[in-house]
Amino acid sequence: MPQNKVIIAGGGLVGSLAACYFAKRGWTVEVYEKRPDPREERNHGKRNLRSINLAISTRGLSAINRLDPEVEKKTLDIVLPMYGRMIHNLDGSLNSQQYSVTGQPINSIDRGRLNEILLDVCESYPNTKIYFEYDTESFDYAKKTVTVKNSKTNEISVASGDLIVGADGAHSTARKYLSFFARTSVEKKYIDHGYCEIEMKSHNADFAMKNDHLHIWPRNTFMLIALPNLDKSFTCTLFMPWSQFEAIETDEDLMAFFKTYFPDSIPLFGEELKKEYFTNPKGALFYVKSSPHHYKGNAVIVGDAAHCTVPFYAQGMNCGFEDIEVLDKLLVEQAAPLIDATDAVACKDVKTNMLTPEQIEAALINYSACRPNDSANMIDLAMHNYIEMRSNVNNLSYRIRHWLEGKLYLVFPKLVIPLYTMVSFTKIPYSKAKKQWIKQTNAIHSLVSFATKTAIFGALFFAFKRYAPTNTLKFPSISEILSIFKK
Amino acid sequence: MPQNKVIIAGGGLVGSLAACYFAKRGWTVEVYEKRPDPREERNHGKRNLRSINLAISTRGLSAINRLDPEVEKKTLDIVLPMYGRMIHNLDGSLNSQQYSVTGQPINSIDRGRLNEILLDVCESYPNTKIYFEYDTESFDYAKKTVTVKNSKTNEISVASGDLIVGADGAHSTARKYLSFFARTSVEKKYIDHGYCEIEMKSHNADFAMKNDHLHIWPRNTFMLIALPNLDKSFTCTLFMPWSQFEAIETDEDLMAFFKTYFPDSIPLFGEELKKEYFTNPKGALFYVKSSPHHYKGNAVIVGDAAHCTVPFYAQGMNCGFEDIEVLDKLLVEQAAPLIDATDAVACKDVKTNMLTPEQIEAALINYSACRPNDSANMIDLAMHNYIEMRSNVNNLSYRIRHWLEGKLYLVFPKLVIPLYTMVSFTKIPYSKAKKQWIKQTNAIHSLVSFATKTAIFGALFFAFKRYAPTNTLKFPSISEILSIFKK
Repeated sequence: MPQNKVIIAGGGLVGSLAACYFAKRGWTVEVYEKRPDPREERNHGKRNLRSINLAISTRGLSAINRLDPEVEKKTLDIVLPMYGRMIHNLDGSLNSQQYSVTGQPINSIDRGRLNEILLDVCESYPNTKIYFEYDTESFDYAKKTVTVKNSKTNEISVASGDLIVGADGAHSTARKYLSFFARTSVEKKYIDHGYCEIEMKSHNADFAMKNDHLHIWPRNTFMLIALPNLDKSFTCTLFMPWSQFEAIETDEDLMAFFKTYFPDSIPLFGEELKKEYFTNPKGALFYVKSSPHHYKGNAVIVGDAAHCTVPFYAQGMNCGFEDIEVLDKLLVEQAAPLIDATDAVACKDVKTNMLTPEQIEAALINYSACRPNDSANMIDLAMHNYIEMRSNVNNLSYRIRHWLEGKLYLVFPKLVIPLYTMVSFTKIPYSKAKKQWIKQTNAIHSLVSFATKTAIFGALFFAFKRYAPTNTLKFPSISEILSIFKK
Repeated sequence: MPQNKVIIAGGGLVGSLAACYFAKRGWTVEVYEKRPDPREERNHGKRNLRSINLAISTRGLSAINRLDPEVEKKTLDIVLPMYGRMIHNLDGSLNSQQYSVTGQPINSIDRGRLNEILLDVCESYPNTKIYFEYDTESFDYAKKTVTVKNSKTNEISVASGDLIVGADGAHSTARKYLSFFARTSVEKKYIDHGYCEIEMKSHNADFAMKNDHLHIWPRNTFMLIALPNLDKSFTCTLFMPWSQFEAIETDEDLMAFFKTYFPDSIPLFGEELKKEYFTNPKGALFYVKSSPHHYKGNAVIVGDAAHCTVPFYAQGMNCGFEDIEVLDKLLVEQAAPLIDATDAVACKDVKTNMLTPEQIEAALINYSACRPNDSANMIDLAMHNYIEMRSNVNNLSYRIRHWLEGKLYLVFPKLVIPLYTMVSFTKIPYSKAKKQWIKQTNAIHSLVSFATKTAIFGALFFAFKRYAPTNTLKFPSISEILSIFKK
């Protein structure tokens, strides 16, 4: 039986999840990935140096669950749940802040291991082939072809399919060509801060700190964070302005800086600190927004290729995985309009491999109608959360608001949902979450401001009543005020 | 004597002007251009199809003059001055609007011919070599090297210099690599309108319309424009929303559309109209803003590679040429701090070919401190001018304001300068021009609003005095009003 074929550029996290989905829905799948097979690399003992910490939460897990609950189980086997932030104060004291009033965690996960799980799943389907060490050189979205180069032999060949999915990451070539074909606007913005990863080894075969928290050393304009790994180490990341990185030139500079700002971390890092800091690369932080994400029924970009975020909400991968869930839902809607496409169980066996180009285009139009806006809002929230993480978390008014939000959520769970909860523990579209957050924040501000004014006025009133000489001044009673109008 | 060497990616208009400047200042120059030598192409009778109309005005001419007044003369030999807009109304009536109250023109020019002049000048200098049909594949700005590919032989080689100048146009590879090295943020934005060029042939060996105007058929949401060519043809360009292009599918659609909106143009185009419209490509319109434009003392991007504009202020090339004038001024400032670098004659013989990397870096820091902002403001003005050209020019209040601005400029030439004059006939930085324009527009609005109110009040007052029964109501006289205060 003839069936649709998809060409996927990129076999990273989002590309491999997309491959699994298309394979599950009966498509012939070809994936072209420029790096070597990470499963072989692991066997040869190489370490992936390019990973910034990853945390998987509701959106990411939901996309895996919809693919196959068994794969979600395998994923949860390799995570370390983090139930809150552990704030490290300057004086070394600690302060735990729960992520969710209902006790839900986000989950620290190793990028490489998750990628391997997905590649294994993907290859377990028939009609699926992953080509490693192939560069995607150029895209012709009108002809639905991709020119690829075997980077070992330099041989050029042309892959063609019924749909091309660009999942080739932040510096996507698929996006560049989409810009020509679909007039996709792209905004790439670097922020003035960089990052450096520093490993914190296990201590006496155990974690050096509590492993059920994401650790933060918030220092207003910069911060250090730490996420636990399965091998009982922590991957720590220092985020700060480039000018500060440039000011640290010697071992002495580094130690003085850590002594001033992260004194409690020094014994935890031990002697490795200097080597890690000066050896590891300093990475740039930027975001990419783009729109539209598709060209006719021929091509679509997903994951970092379509939107790339600063990492401060841990939503990069989660949003990318949600892309794939949404794309699948929209294709299922076309293939089986009578089934509820949002119900993973109900549409488990639906095949989308016989869709016409017009049906695929209809799905992609719907895709571009929501995902560019949702991911752009996610990026705005991540930019905001950087300020929150490095600064606000230590701020009294933030903590009061945070506490109040949590309490209101427990009483009116539909009316007030803390932003962190909406982003990390629900599938509410990011754009809707941002709108609701602005609305409820304004309401809470008004409430707090009203309560504060009432309290101050009340306190002044009673202080006056108590201490003022009884006959100097007298507040008019309500009946006296009303009598003015009666006159 | 050892001297600095510059590698220039791109030998288009801005790249070739840059090459002339560096050659004049004593540098060794290598230019890599991906297209064939246009001078050979012309000999083989090929026509350059990718040119949107070009108009050169003060900024562009100033940059050429600073290079060499003789080259400016050669340039002016091939231009057709346009002193104003010729508005074509729906009923076929014409309406001329001068560009400048002092009678200055902008100048229609052929991109190819200007490029050839500059390439000739460039090759007249010693130590200058232009490599045609070379692709610039990748840039290593740390090592100051460019990997180039001879596109006829596919041979790869590496060019290296003391400075790399990226002048490789709107889809610049130099910019892409600068983004990695200098963390250059880039915004590329497509607008929802496209364009199509249509040639209007000469009539009986003469121009079909007046050749000293830029012709516009403003139709509110879309427009047709025409610029004269030396061969007595006009290059006309239809700018309109993509949805309108897509709606015109047949010869009948096209003719009905032209009959409705551009009836007077139909006899001027003749039978060629249909063929031109359906054969010529429809182009996309977008802008690119980027910042910063340099990496250390090693690399800088200029022209469309750094900023790409929608064409509605005819400032793309002018701004690119101004880039080169500014860059030269900043390098001269480093080489000869005692000479006034803005004075073209005074610094005519200054050489910049012995500058140290630190001096070059100082110049490039100053370059990035002004040009990204200036070009971004130019783009904003061009976006605004699209609305002005296709809609406002027909609007009464616009014409009153335009007239008033012109009159005020004649009386107070430092206080009020029409925006069009600032952009096209001065070298006031675009960012300053935009600020001044906003300020003076607000002032003129207030003035007009005050004058209108006074006029209405005055009219009402006299009408009242004339027609009201004398004893029903009487306005108090000024002495009566004053007497109130005396009481």
